[in-house]
Amino acid sequence: MAAWESYLAQHRNRFLEEYLDYLRIPSISAQDEHAADVARAGRWVADRLTAIGIQNVEVMPTGGHPVVYGDWSGAPGKPTILVYGHFDVQPVDPLDLWTSPPFEPTLRHERVYARGASDNKGNFFVALMAIEALLKNGGLPVNLKFLVEGQEEIGSPQLRPFVEANARRFAADLVLSTDGGSGGADPPQVVTGCRGLSAVEIDVRGPNSDLHSGSFGGAVHNPIHALVRILDSMRSADGKVLVEGFYDDVELTDDDRREIAAVPFDEARFKEQLGIDALFGEPGYTPRERLWARPTLEVNGIWGGYQGEGSKTVLPAEAHAKITCRLVPNQDPAKIREAIAAHVRKHAPPGVTAIAHAGKVAEGARAYRMRADHPANRAAFEVLEQVRRQRPFFGRMGGTVPVYELLVHNLGVQCVSFGQGAGDERAHAPDEFFRLEAFDRGPRAYAMLLERLSSEPAEALRQP
Amino acid sequence: MAAWESYLAQHRNRFLEEYLDYLRIPSISAQDEHAADVARAGRWVADRLTAIGIQNVEVMPTGGHPVVYGDWSGAPGKPTILVYGHFDVQPVDPLDLWTSPPFEPTLRHERVYARGASDNKGNFFVALMAIEALLKNGGLPVNLKFLVEGQEEIGSPQLRPFVEANARRFAADLVLSTDGGSGGADPPQVVTGCRGLSAVEIDVRGPNSDLHSGSFGGAVHNPIHALVRILDSMRSADGKVLVEGFYDDVELTDDDRREIAAVPFDEARFKEQLGIDALFGEPGYTPRERLWARPTLEVNGIWGGYQGEGSKTVLPAEAHAKITCRLVPNQDPAKIREAIAAHVRKHAPPGVTAIAHAGKVAEGARAYRMRADHPANRAAFEVLEQVRRQRPFFGRMGGTVPVYELLVHNLGVQCVSFGQGAGDERAHAPDEFFRLEAFDRGPRAYAMLLERLSSEPAEALRQP
Repeated sequence: MAAWESYLAQHRNRFLEEYLDYLRIPSISAQDEHAADVARAGRWVADRLTAIGIQNVEVMPTGGHPVVYGDWSGAPGKPTILVYGHFDVQPVDPLDLWTSPPFEPTLRHERVYARGASDNKGNFFVALMAIEALLKNGGLPVNLKFLVEGQEEIGSPQLRPFVEANARRFAADLVLSTDGGSGGADPPQVVTGCRGLSAVEIDVRGPNSDLHSGSFGGAVHNPIHALVRILDSMRSADGKVLVEGFYDDVELTDDDRREIAAVPFDEARFKEQLGIDALFGEPGYTPRERLWARPTLEVNGIWGGYQGEGSKTVLPAEAHAKITCRLVPNQDPAKIREAIAAHVRKHAPPGVTAIAHAGKVAEGARAYRMRADHPANRAAFEVLEQVRRQRPFFGRMGGTVPVYELLVHNLGVQCVSFGQGAGDERAHAPDEFFRLEAFDRGPRAYAMLLERLSSEPAEALRQP
Repeated sequence: MAAWESYLAQHRNRFLEEYLDYLRIPSISAQDEHAADVARAGRWVADRLTAIGIQNVEVMPTGGHPVVYGDWSGAPGKPTILVYGHFDVQPVDPLDLWTSPPFEPTLRHERVYARGASDNKGNFFVALMAIEALLKNGGLPVNLKFLVEGQEEIGSPQLRPFVEANARRFAADLVLSTDGGSGGADPPQVVTGCRGLSAVEIDVRGPNSDLHSGSFGGAVHNPIHALVRILDSMRSADGKVLVEGFYDDVELTDDDRREIAAVPFDEARFKEQLGIDALFGEPGYTPRERLWARPTLEVNGIWGGYQGEGSKTVLPAEAHAKITCRLVPNQDPAKIREAIAAHVRKHAPPGVTAIAHAGKVAEGARAYRMRADHPANRAAFEVLEQVRRQRPFFGRMGGTVPVYELLVHNLGVQCVSFGQGAGDERAHAPDEFFRLEAFDRGPRAYAMLLERLSSEPAEALRQP
């Protein structure tokens, strides 16, 4: 057993305490009332980096939630790896569906339950454990930099200009992302792409006040009905998006389809886990293709009128919906948002006004792809195969890590994602969890990956 | 000036204080947390009745919110009039749209703003003032009974069995309702009918937990989209209801249409008041016909997924809507609810379950009609003409007063509605108000109506 492995075992209890401590910070980036908690989580990360021996640690302002920087350059001649993670988390509602409070981490059935337990506090902390163990036992085999942000869950609105302005500081040969990736999946998976994101809110307004549905119903258009009609016009019954121009830039090659088809998909198990009796989606594509390589349009929230107990016979003055689209390579988030806005304008009936706007999520994110045979992907594949003792697959993510494309674009490097969780950890949902098994195995995987990457020439890692 | 008129003028300040006191009770019948407030409002009414000289006053249990009874039988040989009103009010949300708090009545621009200011606390209190003034100045010209309930705003679920069981106690020659009617409208209106009500809630459930819209979006049906499709399938773009069987029992005769067409309708003013640029509704019918004589289906509330600040990329586990239908004569509330439930079953897509159920509003209400030339309607017409100094119209209400049909059916009497407000008082909406003009004029109208009715034979009043 290597010295760093013994170190991990010896300090396991302290590591677990630190992880639970980190999870107690309600760093919800989407809610202004939690802005101070997001900042607190950033300071927590900065303090940890300093404590384990990372140098030049700094909490950097961005104009929004901050970024934590740090570096270690004790491996001259070796590649420089930029470790990416985020310390913000998703909102927690509906709160009543949590078995234990989201910011009071609880151990049940060899799992830690808390908001952020997996996404991304758990996955990032696992990398930190590996880095500490290596630093305290002879040093790292590569040079490191850190970019840990506090706005991933709101689409990283300030990150692009921030990285542009600080490109030299963050210069590296490869990004190693702790966010995304399914090293803990069964079988494990090396991520070769993720979908992009475009967010839009729709506001429908009718009469200047809520009206009595008896006195006015039948002669005045109801904004809920107008919204329902607008939303329904956006998708066919089987889920094909009907917004004009939505699929214009979408391409799915035969090679793509072959790569996706090679990844096993257990439909019966998938349905059973979700408690649904049928899958759904765009005709002509497999479930995996729909999840990884086809764009989507999903209403994430809808509200209008009376939601309380009993009934209230109101014809409401307004109704609202939040939509996000998952995008595939070549789709432009701004263009998709404008296509939806045009659709809303076209389908707004007389008697109401309907607008689509960006809400608080300004930028969106492009999709990201990285070739399966890139040396960093090959390294990740080999490490996972050794640690998990089963053969991994190359596959994509349905979700979005905006920073992949952002870092690639601004730093001119590739990005390997190496999260050690699995896809069933209820990220973004009530009862989010992280397995202690991943907590124990993950640091070993990171340490092995850093050692494996130290043998790659920096130039090879930089190749797209 | 009659003695009762002087009395009204002398006690005006005290009356206003009492009215404001009554408005301060948050007697929201739809919300369990306000059940004690509803009971408190009932005791307030009972105490007032006793104070002004009504006898045998009693707060009667119903199994739900209570009913207040009282009587006065000092006019032998004269008809017995059953005065109807309700002391419960609608919910108040959205609270942020109120200029002043809904249960802190506020005077602005010669209006009293508060929840219930008009519906029905103001309109009922106006009748109480008239009755007190008459009782304190020689007695009433007719015999009176009171039926004041606390569950009108939730569809009076316990009232039907309660009235059936107490039919002898409530026996009368005519119901005089303080709820409904537009004595204060311009021109004033004698109400000859109101629409019925059928309420239903729809629950759509998909996966067993909220899901990450990136990890699952595209291959799992989204309950919001399913709900949107189900709701959209219920109405055509122009508002015709597409639920099978919905119009089966609906009839609109040429006589009906002539009576409705005789009532003036200022479309430009209607649109301006509501701040809308176009009317809406079932093709082939005038706005008045749509409001008074055609049934409607309106979504009163919709919710699902994330409604908070920013975005949350969730594919929610469930989505919900509340619907009420306004019904016209011959339509059966239970049959309409079942038609909607069948429609929901038929349109529920695979991958979700969708059910329609009665929610907390169990019974619904049938529509009500009363001929224009009934002696009580003629009396109301003449009094309004004298008090308002303009010629009234006979017209219907778009809203629902379930008790009309309920009392007619169970007591075998007709029901004249004599509310002294107008249609623009934001009943059920933020900033509900009542004009001081109606507060001052209303008692005179009631006193004159009771005197006018005292000259009608009881038998004539009982004729349908």
